[in-house]
Amino acid sequence: MSSPPSLAEIEAHLDHLTKPPGSLGRLERLAARLCHILGTLQPETRPRRLCLFAGDHGVAAAGVTEWPSEVTGLMIANIVGGGAASSALAASSKTELEVIDVGSLSEPLAEVPGYLCRKVRSGTRDLTKDPALTIDEWRQAAGVGRERARSAADAGCRVVAAGEMGIGNTTPSACLAMLLADVPLEGAVGRGAGAGDETFARKQRIVRDAVERARRPLATRADNVDLETAIAAVGGLEIAAMAGFFTEAHRLGLAVVLDGVIATAAALAAERLVPGVRASLIAAHRGVEPAHGAMLDVLELEPMLDWELRLGEGTGALLLMPLLDAAAAMVREMATFGDLELAGPGTD
Amino acid sequence: MSSPPSLAEIEAHLDHLTKPPGSLGRLERLAARLCHILGTLQPETRPRRLCLFAGDHGVAAAGVTEWPSEVTGLMIANIVGGGAASSALAASSKTELEVIDVGSLSEPLAEVPGYLCRKVRSGTRDLTKDPALTIDEWRQAAGVGRERARSAADAGCRVVAAGEMGIGNTTPSACLAMLLADVPLEGAVGRGAGAGDETFARKQRIVRDAVERARRPLATRADNVDLETAIAAVGGLEIAAMAGFFTEAHRLGLAVVLDGVIATAAALAAERLVPGVRASLIAAHRGVEPAHGAMLDVLELEPMLDWELRLGEGTGALLLMPLLDAAAAMVREMATFGDLELAGPGTD
Repeated sequence: MSSPPSLAEIEAHLDHLTKPPGSLGRLERLAARLCHILGTLQPETRPRRLCLFAGDHGVAAAGVTEWPSEVTGLMIANIVGGGAASSALAASSKTELEVIDVGSLSEPLAEVPGYLCRKVRSGTRDLTKDPALTIDEWRQAAGVGRERARSAADAGCRVVAAGEMGIGNTTPSACLAMLLADVPLEGAVGRGAGAGDETFARKQRIVRDAVERARRPLATRADNVDLETAIAAVGGLEIAAMAGFFTEAHRLGLAVVLDGVIATAAALAAERLVPGVRASLIAAHRGVEPAHGAMLDVLELEPMLDWELRLGEGTGALLLMPLLDAAAAMVREMATFGDLELAGPGTD
Repeated sequence: MSSPPSLAEIEAHLDHLTKPPGSLGRLERLAARLCHILGTLQPETRPRRLCLFAGDHGVAAAGVTEWPSEVTGLMIANIVGGGAASSALAASSKTELEVIDVGSLSEPLAEVPGYLCRKVRSGTRDLTKDPALTIDEWRQAAGVGRERARSAADAGCRVVAAGEMGIGNTTPSACLAMLLADVPLEGAVGRGAGAGDETFARKQRIVRDAVERARRPLATRADNVDLETAIAAVGGLEIAAMAGFFTEAHRLGLAVVLDGVIATAAALAAERLVPGVRASLIAAHRGVEPAHGAMLDVLELEPMLDWELRLGEGTGALLLMPLLDAAAAMVREMATFGDLELAGPGTD
């Protein structure tokens, strides 16, 4: 068996295809990254799966969002029922969609294909008062994510994505951006799914205080257990599940399409706990939440789309999927100048 | 039969879908424009077709490009044979691909499906010495484009795109940007498929002189025939064909996905000759050539992708096609808040 191509070998292959070198711009960088992650010049992008993790947040009761927590449960049913944005975009992009409830406040749905109830607890604690999660709860939810990454790989997927649904979850994401990427408060907190001025100001105070509390033990000690405890204290169950999903997908050599600010906060947590995970990530987009771009910079990831998205549910990742197909098709199917018996430009 | 929805009605529909209003950003604007052009809230994006027009340019002999004109013919064969970027991306995006030779210097290929020889002449005249085309030649090539738009509509396509292959064709495009959009020389001329410094300087001089000559008659008279003569003098056969294609697609109520700088120069020519055409256009991307963004601004079109493309062949339009599917799927398939018996945010 031949060894996987190096990045230089991949780029040389792209330059020999029948087009001016580099003339497909970002598509070529996307193709190079995909080939490098999958270790092949014959990348396959289907079957693929989006695992969408849902969880509720105790902090929602403290008034960080205009939406009630019941919406999480309603949206789980809507996604499973095919009426959500993620349902429509998954079908349109031929991506399998699996919804995993790791911690909503709502009653489990009846067992149907594409839905799993793996609840670790019913919502997190209110992080204005208590740590949102204990380290054990964080690890248990991460374990669910790891299991779903293995399940996707077992089903033949080489490309996966994680998405989320959870009213209030831009607040823990903002906390993680501050805690793990040193993003300043103004750059960390955004308006999520549409916070008004009063809600926004409250959210800023809550994030600042929660991060300060979570940071305290880290100032004196700094081992990985302490870091994981601090992450859990401002985290979320769907965030933990995504972090575990990314870690395991990386270990399995899958290409992971990264969605929005919540998924990126989870990826940052995964990278801090298991350095190297980011090498398997492809950033689908840079969204509206200010922390998103800042965390992508820290992860050294180039976002492919700049479409002002702020929905979550893996929708950004789903939009990139057909462009990943295009990148793979370019590598697999294009002729080379050698095939045409034609030299490159300026050599005749 | 009900009347087509207004833009306000379309936007209201998008706001009632189960997502925070506007949270899918650019995808929502794309969906609104598609629905508005097609006059429906049930947009169908397939079948669809890319008509790729090929032609050669006399000015290539004057040294505006590093690539020899023979490449046009080789690439026609490569596209038809399935080895080009457009072939791979058309297959990947499930877009029919038709190649029409309206004026290459190469011998016609054997008749095969997806290829048509409709040569108006073998290449344009060298625009450093003569008008590239007469008004009659321009009109004849535009007629081929109109015919192919009708053929696509007859085949059931509601979404179409035009692409091009023609060594040297960023030079006439730069001329048209100066002539029709008053783009200054520095903003009009780029490096095309990779011009070196010397070639680039020569290209700038050639464009400046050709536009000056074409403008002269317009200074004293200014009817539509004079304008068309001036356009033809710095135009190209594939550019004329695309202009005719856009005009007819607009008349037929099709949605036209606009590719790169050459296609956009053709769209600008179409808009100047038949005002209103731009209302049917969806700009796929803004490419590397400086004149592209400037002409999109004049046409008041928002480019959807910013992927540093500079290949042509309709590749930018092809990359947008699956995102158009996503936009259409969002409109057609998502539930509304009414369906969930849930009010929007902040109203409970």
